[in-house]
Amino acid sequence: MKKLTERKVVLAGAGPGDPELISVKALKAIQRADVILYDALVSKELLLHCSKGCKLVYVGKLKGRKEFSQEEINDLIVFYASRYSYVLRLKGGDPYVFGRGHEELEYAIRRGIHVEVIPGISSAIAAPSAAGIPVTKRGVTESFWVITGMLASGEFSSDLELASKSSATVVILMGMTHIKEIMKFFSENRSPLEPAAVVHYASTDQQSSVKGNVSNIASLAAKEGISSPAVIVVGKVVNESLMEEILVREEIKMKVAV
Amino acid sequence: MKKLTERKVVLAGAGPGDPELISVKALKAIQRADVILYDALVSKELLLHCSKGCKLVYVGKLKGRKEFSQEEINDLIVFYASRYSYVLRLKGGDPYVFGRGHEELEYAIRRGIHVEVIPGISSAIAAPSAAGIPVTKRGVTESFWVITGMLASGEFSSDLELASKSSATVVILMGMTHIKEIMKFFSENRSPLEPAAVVHYASTDQQSSVKGNVSNIASLAAKEGISSPAVIVVGKVVNESLMEEILVREEIKMKVAV
Repeated sequence: MKKLTERKVVLAGAGPGDPELISVKALKAIQRADVILYDALVSKELLLHCSKGCKLVYVGKLKGRKEFSQEEINDLIVFYASRYSYVLRLKGGDPYVFGRGHEELEYAIRRGIHVEVIPGISSAIAAPSAAGIPVTKRGVTESFWVITGMLASGEFSSDLELASKSSATVVILMGMTHIKEIMKFFSENRSPLEPAAVVHYASTDQQSSVKGNVSNIASLAAKEGISSPAVIVVGKVVNESLMEEILVREEIKMKVAV
Repeated sequence: MKKLTERKVVLAGAGPGDPELISVKALKAIQRADVILYDALVSKELLLHCSKGCKLVYVGKLKGRKEFSQEEINDLIVFYASRYSYVLRLKGGDPYVFGRGHEELEYAIRRGIHVEVIPGISSAIAAPSAAGIPVTKRGVTESFWVITGMLASGEFSSDLELASKSSATVVILMGMTHIKEIMKFFSENRSPLEPAAVVHYASTDQQSSVKGNVSNIASLAAKEGISSPAVIVVGKVVNESLMEEILVREEIKMKVAV
């Protein structure tokens, strides 16, 4: 068993998907770790940076099999921390945005383990950005509200309705299962024509996105075969997307080139 | 003059302060850039990674002198993009969170310049995290709202009052000038004892933070000499901060060591 003071658990965010969107600090943690416990949304390319002797432990969802329970993950972290000097818990995005990273650290701290957090680029900001949409824009929308599509309890967040009454850009993570019901709040409290977008696998090679309004975005996404993991963005900033202009320009270039 | 297709402007976020919290992609952009236009909040250490021939152009606030106007910055970007292949516009945090990055890109696009965005770790999430506070926690707060303390117009955002009526974690950037007035909304609409924290120079060597409630946080911050740049966090998650537990534990360790 390692001595108490030698044990260390580092909780780090791997960013939204593109392996180069990890922070330098988190990449160094990957290189240094004795053990890495990682989720499904962590890019496999990133794991190639680990040291030769590093133990890679997958704790994400397994297709067709039961997911690791939070209790199991907590115990695995402590298990490895008692045997190795440097245990890295690597999660997609930022570890404090709808992850249960904080619970994991609390569990480790209570067992006398030294912990550290390395933030990551959250898809809440990076997914809209990857589709050309700024979460805030001077004179258009000067705040953004990040909400989960479904509470831990399985119910809708009461904040969802309040958010639909605000003028904020609303970013909804894990909202694809109930996109129709969620969009209804906005249709009623803002307008059926309120702009909305869905960004799928943001910042990766498989990225796709659709833009429309709160009345048609669910069917547009379905038509394109877009499901989870995806980020829903609602608000006037969606119309500010630079993407179309860029695409139009690229097309012009191509036409000139042909 | 460079040909249209050769011109490129990359807008990148440098992260919250710690130079290692930049993304690998943005660091590569620094290494590759011919010109870097950077703000006051960008770590000087990061700029050391630029190439030998790179031109560094400071467009932040100059002490005692007039700030660069947005029009000047827009024009400078286009000016350099017409003369160099790879122009990097480097901003603190994420370029789409209350920056005017989007306006800069729009201006460049309209002039036929190819643009790209590299997101960054925003202090909206990283500053609370650096003080041990998760912006969301299962069963405590399942959404967070990021708001500016002051609109471009110089008025309070109407969203501030609505946010104080929600159950979201509210993260206020650029709010120190009016912290007392802002906290009053929360005191009235939540409770005078609603937890609040202020994090100054998050993730840097100069980081300091105070924790309290919406009634006393303004005076606690003043007592500690904390002013801008700082991030204000309001919500139950403030009480979930792991920091105190860590500090208490460190103290115990020290006592044992002595």
